[in-house]
Amino acid sequence: MSYLQTLRETTPLIHNLTNEVVINFTANGLYAIGAVPVMSKSLDEVSDMASIASGVLLNIGTVTSTDIEAMLLAGKAANEKGIPVVLDPVGAGATPFRLKTCHRLLDELEITAIRGNASEIAALLGEDQWQSRGVDSTGDGNVVKLAQQAAASLTCLIVLTGETDVIATKDETVVCQNGIPLLGSITGTGCLFSSLLTAFLSLEGPSVEKATEAISVYTIASEMAAEHANVQGPGTLHPYFLDALYNIRPEDVRKRQKVEAR
Amino acid sequence: MSYLQTLRETTPLIHNLTNEVVINFTANGLYAIGAVPVMSKSLDEVSDMASIASGVLLNIGTVTSTDIEAMLLAGKAANEKGIPVVLDPVGAGATPFRLKTCHRLLDELEITAIRGNASEIAALLGEDQWQSRGVDSTGDGNVVKLAQQAAASLTCLIVLTGETDVIATKDETVVCQNGIPLLGSITGTGCLFSSLLTAFLSLEGPSVEKATEAISVYTIASEMAAEHANVQGPGTLHPYFLDALYNIRPEDVRKRQKVEAR
Amino acid sequence: MSYLQTLRETTPLIHNLTNEVVINFTANGLYAIGAVPVMSKSLDEVSDMASIASGVLLNIGTVTSTDIEAMLLAGKAANEKGIPVVLDPVGAGATPFRLKTCHRLLDELEITAIRGNASEIAALLGEDQWQSRGVDSTGDGNVVKLAQQAAASLTCLIVLTGETDVIATKDETVVCQNGIPLLGSITGTGCLFSSLLTAFLSLEGPSVEKATEAISVYTIASEMAAEHANVQGPGTLHPYFLDALYNIRPEDVRKRQKVEAR
Repeated sequence: MSYLQTLRETTPLIHNLTNEVVINFTANGLYAIGAVPVMSKSLDEVSDMASIASGVLLNIGTVTSTDIEAMLLAGKAANEKGIPVVLDPVGAGATPFRLKTCHRLLDELEITAIRGNASEIAALLGEDQWQSRGVDSTGDGNVVKLAQQAAASLTCLIVLTGETDVIATKDETVVCQNGIPLLGSITGTGCLFSSLLTAFLSLEGPSVEKATEAISVYTIASEMAAEHANVQGPGTLHPYFLDALYNIRPEDVRKRQKVEAR
Repeated sequence: MSYLQTLRETTPLIHNLTNEVVINFTANGLYAIGAVPVMSKSLDEVSDMASIASGVLLNIGTVTSTDIEAMLLAGKAANEKGIPVVLDPVGAGATPFRLKTCHRLLDELEITAIRGNASEIAALLGEDQWQSRGVDSTGDGNVVKLAQQAAASLTCLIVLTGETDVIATKDETVVCQNGIPLLGSITGTGCLFSSLLTAFLSLEGPSVEKATEAISVYTIASEMAAEHANVQGPGTLHPYFLDALYNIRPEDVRKRQKVEAR
Repeated sequence: MSYLQTLRETTPLIHNLTNEVVINFTANGLYAIGAVPVMSKSLDEVSDMASIASGVLLNIGTVTSTDIEAMLLAGKAANEKGIPVVLDPVGAGATPFRLKTCHRLLDELEITAIRGNASEIAALLGEDQWQSRGVDSTGDGNVVKLAQQAAASLTCLIVLTGETDVIATKDETVVCQNGIPLLGSITGTGCLFSSLLTAFLSLEGPSVEKATEAISVYTIASEMAAEHANVQGPGTLHPYFLDALYNIRPEDVRKRQKVEAR
C-alpha cells in the first residue's frame, strides 16, 4: 500500500499557520491530495486547533510578531501530542527578522522537518554562498552536501527542493529528479509542498520514505499537468496541477519516479 | 422577474468580513454573479463601510479577537440601517473559541440568516451527534429536522448546506437537491455561497424565496460547470464554476431546479 | 530594446504592501511578467525588505492602522534608497479613513506614481462628481482632464485606468485604448497592474514611456487572453490572462498598441 492511498483513506487534518499569499492555494492543494486543511493563527484557539490536528505546518512567509506567538503555542501543543511539526523558512536569509524567527522556532520547538530551497537552508546554517533575494532561491552550490550538513547541524529531517530535490537525515540521503521548472512560476508551490509533506509525515512509517513519496507525488503531478494540451503557462498550469494532485494514482508514481539513495 | 436578474440590474454592494483563505474567491464569485464585493475588517472604517453596503457577511473562518470587534461594529451599523447580516459559523464546533464567538455575535447582533453545514449548525445548538473536524462537515443525522430546530431556537433563517440543502424558518422548510459533490473539494465554496446569499437577501422579497433561488443558482451553476469537457478535477472546476455563475440565466434555474417544500 | 525585455532580464524584486484580497493574484502576476514579488507588512522587517527591493507598492485595499505604519516605514526606506514608490488608493472615496490614509501617505512620503480609477483619483482631489461605491469606479467625466489636474495638484505621475487609460505628468499626457471590459470582472486586476507598473518604473528610462509600455503590455495581454476559445467568462479569463502576461512578446505590443499623446 502506498502512503498516498493511506493519506486518501485517513484524510489527515493539517493545521497550517501560513502566509497570506499562499493560504488559499495551500487549502485547495491539501483538499486535492486528499487531506483536510484548517487555517488559524488566532492566539485564542491555535492550541486547541493543533490538538485536534494530525500535523502542524509553520510557514514564516508573511510572519508578524503575533504570528510567532501563535506558532509557538501551536507547535508546543503539537509537540505534547507527538504529531509532526514542519517548518517552512520562507526567505530566511532575506531579512534579519526572518532568520531570528526561524532560530527562535527551532530553539523552542521540536521541529520534525524543515522544507526550504537551497538559499533558505544555507541561511539557517549561516552560510553566505547561497544569496537570498526575496523569497527566491538562487546559487549553484552542492545541494546534496548542503542538505546533509543541515540535517546534521539542525538535527531534523531536511527536505531541500529545487531543480534537484534532496531528502536528508544524519543517516540517509535521497535525491529526487522529477518535476518541471514552470512550477516555480506559480507562487506558493514550495509552501504548498511543505503542507503536503506535513500530511505525509503524519502517517505511520519511516520519515525518509514518507518524504520521498511526498516529493515524488508532488513533482510527478506537475509533470502530468504540464503534459496537458491546455497548459500554456503558469496561469493554466495552476488548475491542471491541482487536478493532477487530485487524480494521480500510486501507479503513476511507481512508473515515473526518479529517486536515488546517496 | 427572477431575483438573479434583479441582482444583476441592481449590483448590490456586499461588505464581507471574512476569512483570509476565501477572501479572493469570495470577491471573484460576487463579481461573477453580478454583485459588488468590498472587504474590510479595519476598526477605523467598518461602520462606515457597512453603512454604504446593501448587506453584511460575517465569516469566522480565521477570526481573531480584533476581527470580532470589527464584526460587532459592522453588524451594529447594518442593524441600524436595516440591511441583512448573514453569519457563516465556519468550524463552529472545532474549538471553544469559535463557538463562543458565534454565540457572542448571535447575542449582540440581529442576525438575518445563518449559513452552515450540518456539524456547524449542530454545534450552535449544543448537539454532539454531528462531529466537527476542522471546518469539514461529517455525520448522517436528519438535516431537515436539524435546520428546523435551529430556526426555532436561533430565531433566524437557517440555510443548511450539504448533499441536501435545507432552508428553514420557524414556519417554512424548503429542501433543495441540486449540486455536485466535487464542489466540496474547492476551499471556500460554502463561504462564497454565504456571501451570495447575503447579496440575494439584500433584494426586496420573501426571505425563503430569495434563499431558495440563491441556493438553486449556486448549485445549478456547479452542475453546469462540471458538464464542461475541460473539467477533470477541483482545479479546473474552479474557473469553470466562476464562469457558470457569470453565465447562468434564469431559465437554466427554472429548468433544472429540484426544490420541494416540506 | 523594450522595457518588457529588460524587465525579464533583470527580474526586479518588488516589495508589495497590499491587500489580502489580491495578494496571491499579485504575486502570480508579477512572476508571470518576469518580476519577483515579495510581500511583507511586518513592522519588524518592512524597512529591511524595502531596502533590498527595486520598487515598493502601497495598496490600501484592506488597510489597518498597523499597515499604515508599515507603509510609512517601507516608503521611507524606499525614498532613502531612491527606488520608486507607487500608491494604489483603492476605494479612496468609500470611507473617510481611506481618504485620510491616502493623504497621510502622500504627505509623509515621496510618491513616484498613483495608479487608480477615475473615482479614486477624483476623491484624492476632493471632487464629488465621480461617486465612489466600494472599490468600483463609476461616472462619466472627462478622465483626461482629471488625470492632468491630479498630476498638477499631487505632483507625481498619474496612471488613471478604466475604459480609457490615461498617463499624465504636469508636462505630458498619453491616452491608451487597449483592453477588454471583462478584465474588470476579476478582482484585483487594477491592483495587480499597480504592482506591474512598479516593476516597470524600477527600470532605467523616462517615466511616461515606462508607464505607457506597462499599460500596453497589460491590456494587450488581456486582449490576447480573451481571444482564446476556452475563455468564456471571468473564471477562465484568469488563468489565460496570467499565461498571456507570461507569453506576451515585445512585437505583440508593437503590433497592437493604441497609444496617443495628447
